[in-house]
Amino acid sequence: MYSFLNDYSEGAHPLVLDALLKTNHIQSVGYGNDEYCEKAREVIRDRIGNQNADIHFLVGGTQTNLTFISHVLSDYEAVISSDEGHINVHETGAIEGTGHKVLTHPHDNGKLTVEMIDKIVSSHTDEHMVLPRMVYISQTTEFGTYYTLNELKDIYEYCQKHDLYLFIDGARLGSAIVLDDAPKFKDLGQYCDAFYIGGTKMGALFGEALVILNDNIKKHFRFQLKQKGAMLAKGRLLGVQFYALLKDCLYEKIGEHENEMANLLREGLKEYELYCPSSTNQLFVDLPDTVVEHIEKEYQIIRMKSLGNGYTRIRMVTSWATQKEEVLKFNEYVKLIK
Amino acid sequence: MYSFLNDYSEGAHPLVLDALLKTNHIQSVGYGNDEYCEKAREVIRDRIGNQNADIHFLVGGTQTNLTFISHVLSDYEAVISSDEGHINVHETGAIEGTGHKVLTHPHDNGKLTVEMIDKIVSSHTDEHMVLPRMVYISQTTEFGTYYTLNELKDIYEYCQKHDLYLFIDGARLGSAIVLDDAPKFKDLGQYCDAFYIGGTKMGALFGEALVILNDNIKKHFRFQLKQKGAMLAKGRLLGVQFYALLKDCLYEKIGEHENEMANLLREGLKEYELYCPSSTNQLFVDLPDTVVEHIEKEYQIIRMKSLGNGYTRIRMVTSWATQKEEVLKFNEYVKLIK
Amino acid sequence: MYSFLNDYSEGAHPLVLDALLKTNHIQSVGYGNDEYCEKAREVIRDRIGNQNADIHFLVGGTQTNLTFISHVLSDYEAVISSDEGHINVHETGAIEGTGHKVLTHPHDNGKLTVEMIDKIVSSHTDEHMVLPRMVYISQTTEFGTYYTLNELKDIYEYCQKHDLYLFIDGARLGSAIVLDDAPKFKDLGQYCDAFYIGGTKMGALFGEALVILNDNIKKHFRFQLKQKGAMLAKGRLLGVQFYALLKDCLYEKIGEHENEMANLLREGLKEYELYCPSSTNQLFVDLPDTVVEHIEKEYQIIRMKSLGNGYTRIRMVTSWATQKEEVLKFNEYVKLIK
Amino acid sequence: MYSFLNDYSEGAHPLVLDALLKTNHIQSVGYGNDEYCEKAREVIRDRIGNQNADIHFLVGGTQTNLTFISHVLSDYEAVISSDEGHINVHETGAIEGTGHKVLTHPHDNGKLTVEMIDKIVSSHTDEHMVLPRMVYISQTTEFGTYYTLNELKDIYEYCQKHDLYLFIDGARLGSAIVLDDAPKFKDLGQYCDAFYIGGTKMGALFGEALVILNDNIKKHFRFQLKQKGAMLAKGRLLGVQFYALLKDCLYEKIGEHENEMANLLREGLKEYELYCPSSTNQLFVDLPDTVVEHIEKEYQIIRMKSLGNGYTRIRMVTSWATQKEEVLKFNEYVKLIK
Repeated sequence: MYSFLNDYSEGAHPLVLDALLKTNHIQSVGYGNDEYCEKAREVIRDRIGNQNADIHFLVGGTQTNLTFISHVLSDYEAVISSDEGHINVHETGAIEGTGHKVLTHPHDNGKLTVEMIDKIVSSHTDEHMVLPRMVYISQTTEFGTYYTLNELKDIYEYCQKHDLYLFIDGARLGSAIVLDDAPKFKDLGQYCDAFYIGGTKMGALFGEALVILNDNIKKHFRFQLKQKGAMLAKGRLLGVQFYALLKDCLYEKIGEHENEMANLLREGLKEYELYCPSSTNQLFVDLPDTVVEHIEKEYQIIRMKSLGNGYTRIRMVTSWATQKEEVLKFNEYVKLIK
Repeated sequence: MYSFLNDYSEGAHPLVLDALLKTNHIQSVGYGNDEYCEKAREVIRDRIGNQNADIHFLVGGTQTNLTFISHVLSDYEAVISSDEGHINVHETGAIEGTGHKVLTHPHDNGKLTVEMIDKIVSSHTDEHMVLPRMVYISQTTEFGTYYTLNELKDIYEYCQKHDLYLFIDGARLGSAIVLDDAPKFKDLGQYCDAFYIGGTKMGALFGEALVILNDNIKKHFRFQLKQKGAMLAKGRLLGVQFYALLKDCLYEKIGEHENEMANLLREGLKEYELYCPSSTNQLFVDLPDTVVEHIEKEYQIIRMKSLGNGYTRIRMVTSWATQKEEVLKFNEYVKLIK
Repeated sequence: MYSFLNDYSEGAHPLVLDALLKTNHIQSVGYGNDEYCEKAREVIRDRIGNQNADIHFLVGGTQTNLTFISHVLSDYEAVISSDEGHINVHETGAIEGTGHKVLTHPHDNGKLTVEMIDKIVSSHTDEHMVLPRMVYISQTTEFGTYYTLNELKDIYEYCQKHDLYLFIDGARLGSAIVLDDAPKFKDLGQYCDAFYIGGTKMGALFGEALVILNDNIKKHFRFQLKQKGAMLAKGRLLGVQFYALLKDCLYEKIGEHENEMANLLREGLKEYELYCPSSTNQLFVDLPDTVVEHIEKEYQIIRMKSLGNGYTRIRMVTSWATQKEEVLKFNEYVKLIK
Repeated sequence: MYSFLNDYSEGAHPLVLDALLKTNHIQSVGYGNDEYCEKAREVIRDRIGNQNADIHFLVGGTQTNLTFISHVLSDYEAVISSDEGHINVHETGAIEGTGHKVLTHPHDNGKLTVEMIDKIVSSHTDEHMVLPRMVYISQTTEFGTYYTLNELKDIYEYCQKHDLYLFIDGARLGSAIVLDDAPKFKDLGQYCDAFYIGGTKMGALFGEALVILNDNIKKHFRFQLKQKGAMLAKGRLLGVQFYALLKDCLYEKIGEHENEMANLLREGLKEYELYCPSSTNQLFVDLPDTVVEHIEKEYQIIRMKSLGNGYTRIRMVTSWATQKEEVLKFNEYVKLIK
C-alpha cells in the first residue's frame, strides 16, 4: 500500500546517503566539533549571507524546539504560538516540560498575524502573568501554508519593537523556500532571531540545523545542547548530511520536487475543496467519507477530522521520495472512484 | 593522526550500514511503530529471555538516561550513582535539569557497592531530604571496569529489599557482555529493573535500546519519549540497526574485537601502571609526561589528569573500527619512545 | 480612601489574631507536626465527614496549586482549567513552571462544564499530545460565580469515568459554602479528589488547608511540600488559625458577612449591569466611564477592562473586615454621582 | 518538657507581634507593594549602607533559596555549596527541583574555603559538565560556625574574579552579626551579590528579607517570586515585622540574647567536647549516651549522630524566647546527672 502519510516514511535521499557512506570509515572528533560540521556551517553562513551566525546541529524537531526555547527564555517568560502550532499541540508538552507557558491565539489559515501577537502582548501587563518573550512560527505551517517575505518582515519588525525574539521552525522549510514570495535563505538570515533548517523531512536520515542570529541568545548553547540530550556523539553525521543537502542546492531541488508532486495531487483532487490551500508539500482536502474509504483501500493517508456532514478532512504529504508514477496512479485511482 | 580517543570516532559497522542501505527506499510508519523496530524488539526479548520486556529505541546515552530517570522518579525522589557516574559528571546536569538530585558516593574501582548504596539510603531519613529511589550503574563503568554477575545480583537484591529501582547504563555493554564472569543478556533480563543496550559506541551510527523489565515503570513511556524530544521520526533507522547488531551476535563480535584490541594495547604498555585495570575496551594508564608528549605527536588520546609527579593519567579506547595493524604500529611506536 | 480592591487588604479576623496571641509563647515542634495542626485536622475531618482525609497546611494559593498539581501529575500529564482559571492566567506560569501544560476552554459564566471538559479529553488521543489527568475548578470562580452541588456532582462523575482527578481551588470557599444550592463541607468531602479551604481571603493572616481525599495521590506529599518551599517552619501558626476559623463556624460567618456586604453593594449599583451576576463576595459591574472616575476619587476599585463603548467593567470585593457603614456611605456616594 | 530543639519553637517576639496587632485593621495594597514593606526596605537600605539594593520579602528559607537561585542561574549553571549546606541536604532537592545541580565539597568546620571553591571551579572545564556560577554560604553555618569579615572578603574577591555570584543564606544572620570579627550589615551590603536577613529564626512569625545588590540579577525578580508561590498576598505582614525587627536594632538584641543563652549552655556543658565550637546560638556537643538519655527525660534536644563509641553528638539551639532561668535549670540538671 503506497503511503502519502508524511515526509518521513523513507530513509535519506541517495546523495545524502552516499555522503554518509563515503565518510563512514574516516575518524573524526565527536559532538559536532568535526570538520564536516564546520564545512556545513560555512555553507549555511554563505547561503544565508550572515557570517556572524552560530549554527548547531540537532537530531529532531521537538528536540530543537525545546532545547532552543528553554535556552532563550527565563523561568517566567513565555512563547507565543498559534493554537495549532506544533509546540502547542503535538510535542506532548515539551515546552511546558522545560517550564514555559505557550501563549496561543487561534490561527488564520495556519498563521499568526501581527494583530494576534499584539493582542497577547498587550494583555500581559504585570508580574502576576507570564512575560511574553518569543514568537514561534512554522515555515511551512502545520496546515501547509507559508509566510510571505512581507508577512515575515512585519512580524519581525513588531518583535523588535516589543523586545520579543522571533524563532522560525523550519521542519519543512525547503517546501516554502522555493516559492516566489516566500523568504529565501538570505531573508531568513536577516529577518528573524533564529530559525532551523529542517533535515528530517527534507531528505536527511534525520537532523535539523539551528541557526542563531541574535548575539544575545548565543552564549553557552552547547551546554544547553548537552543537558537536553541533544548533542549527538557522532555529530559528523549531521555535518555530512547538511553539507550534502546545501552545497549544491539539493535542498531546494527536493523542495521543488515535493511541491510539484503535491500540486499534481491537487490537480487530481481538484473537484474537492482544499482546506488552507497552498502549493507546498502538504495538502488538506475535504472529501466525501465514501471517497476516503475507497482511497484507504489502496493508500495510506491521514484523517484529520470528521466534518460531520458526510465529509472528512484528510491530509496527504509528499517527500523527496514521492514518485511521479505513483502520484499519477493515485490520480487515476481517484478518477475511478467517482 | 590515528585516534584512540573514543569509540565513536567512526561511522557504523559495515553490516549495520548495509542494513540501512537496503531498507532506505521502503516506506514505513514513523516514531518506532514500524516493522523493523518490532523485529528488533523480538530479537531482544528472545536474547534476554524475557518476553514481557518493553523496549524503546532512543538516539543517545544522555537522552536515554534523562528520559528514563525522569520517567521513573517522582519530583522529590533521587537517583544514587558513583561520584564518577556519567549522569553525575558528564551530562551537564541533565538529571538535575529534569528536577532530580543525584546522590553520590566515591567509587571503588569505578563501581558502586551495596555498602555504599546502603550508606546513602540509611542516611536519608525524613521528608526534609530527598527520597532515594533508584540506583544507576554503568556496565562497563566510566573507568572500564565491570560488575560481575554476582555483584549485580547483590545490588539487585539490595534494591528489591529497599524499594529501589536498579537501572544499568549499557553504553558500552558489548565490551562487558563477552567477559566470562560478567552478566549476559539473559542475566540482564532478570537482575535489574531496566537497562539499555548501547548502540552508538558499539557499531551503530547512533542509538540505544532501552529495555524496561519492571511493570511498575512501563506505563506511558512513549509520552515521556516524545516530551523529551527523544522520539525519532524515522524510528525505523533504530530498528534496522539494532536488528542488524543483535540477530547474529554481531554485537558480541564487536565487543570481543574491542577487548582484543584493548588487550593488545595493554600488552604494549605493560611496563606502565594501569588505573582500574580490566580487560574491556577502555584503558587508563599512568604514563611519564614525556611519554605522553611523544605519543601525542602521532596519536590522539585523552589526558585525564596530571598526577603531579611527572606522570599523567591517559585514556585510550578501542572500537569496532580499531584496526589491528594500527594497534601494532602504536605498540612499536611506544617501544621506540622508551 | 476606602478600598474595595480585594479581600486581603486587612490583617486577620480578631478571633484569629487572638488565637495567635494566646499561643505565642508556647513551645511546639515545627513543620506542621504540632498539636494545633492536629486539632485543626480533626475539626476539618469532622466537618467534611471524612476521617480518611489527609490535610496539609500551606501559606498561599499559588503555592498550594503548584505544589499539589505537580505532586499529582506525571511529567507528560496536563490539567484542565477554564481559560480564565487562576492557574492559567494569574500565577505567572507556576504550573508550567513545574513542567505541566494547562489545557483550557473558554469559560461559561466563569465556569467549566462537563461538555467543555469532554471536548478537551476527547481531542487528546495519542502520545504526541499531553495526557489530560486533572480538572481544576475554583469555588467561587474568578468571576464570583459558583458551582452548584449538582454541577459539582456531574463534573466529579465525569472525572471518575475518565480517570481524571478533580481538584477545587477554594481560595474563596467560604463565600460559596453558605449559599443554599452550593456544596457544603460534607459534600466537598465526598465529591472531589482534593480541595483547599482558603484562609488568606477568609479572615486568616495567611494560609490554605489542603484536603486530599483520594488515597492514590496522598503518598509522600510532605516531601513535595518541603521541596517546593511550602512547609512553614512555625507550622503551628496555620493550625492555630484554621482551628479558630473552623471550630465554631467562624468561617461560615465570615462568608455570610462578605456576601451580605456584597449584596448591599449590588443594591446600590442595581441600575447598572452586573457581569456574571451572583451573590458571592465579588461583584463585576459595567459602569459608565464617568461613574468609574467619580468613584475612584473616593474609593479603590479594580478596572477589569474598558468595554470600548463608554463603559468600563470594574470589580469590587468585600471581606471579613468590610464595614456596613462604609458600604452604605458608598451607596450614598454613588447615588450622588448620578 | 522544655525544648532546645530549635529557634522556631515559639511564635514572634512581643514587639513584632505588637506591630502586627497595631496595624491589623489598616487597609493596604497587596503583594509587598504597601507602605510597610517600603518602610522596611528603607531601613534595610540605610542599615546596609547601600541605597541601590533591591529588597524582596519572602516567607521561608527554602523558598528564598530556591526562588533566588533559580532566578539567577541559567539551565546548565550550578551552585557551589558545602556538603552539609542546607540547600544540599535539608531542602528535599529544592534546588535540583528547579533544574540546577548543587556542586559540593566536604566542609571545614561547617565552612567553604576559597581553596574548596577553586577546586570545584577548576575541575569544570567544558560543556559536558555544568557551569559553576554561584557560591552559596550560610551565616551562621549549619554547624553554628560563622565566616569572619576577612573570610567573606576573600571568598567575594575570588567570586568576582571567576564570574561567580556570592549568595549568603542568613537564616540565622542575627546570631553572627553581633560577633566582633563577623561581617556587619554594612559589610554585607558590600561584599556579596545577595544575602537574606532571616526573620523566622530571629523573632518574626515568619519571613526572610532578600537583599539583591548586583544589578545583573535584579531584573524581573517579582515575576519569579509569583511563579514560585513566594509572593504573599498580605505582603504587609512581612514589611511590618521587618520594620519592627530592624528599625531599633531589635534584630541585634535578639542575636545577642541568643548567643548569651547559648554560651551559658556551653558553660554548663564545658566538660564535654564541642563539635565545631563557636559562640553563636547553636551548639553541638559530644555527650556520653547515658547523659543524653538523662537529658531527654526533661528536655527536647536533637540527636545528630551516634558516634559509635558510647557517645552521641547532640544539637541544642537558643532563640529570642529562651529564658535564662530555664537555661540555669538545665545546667543544674546536667550537673546532677554527673
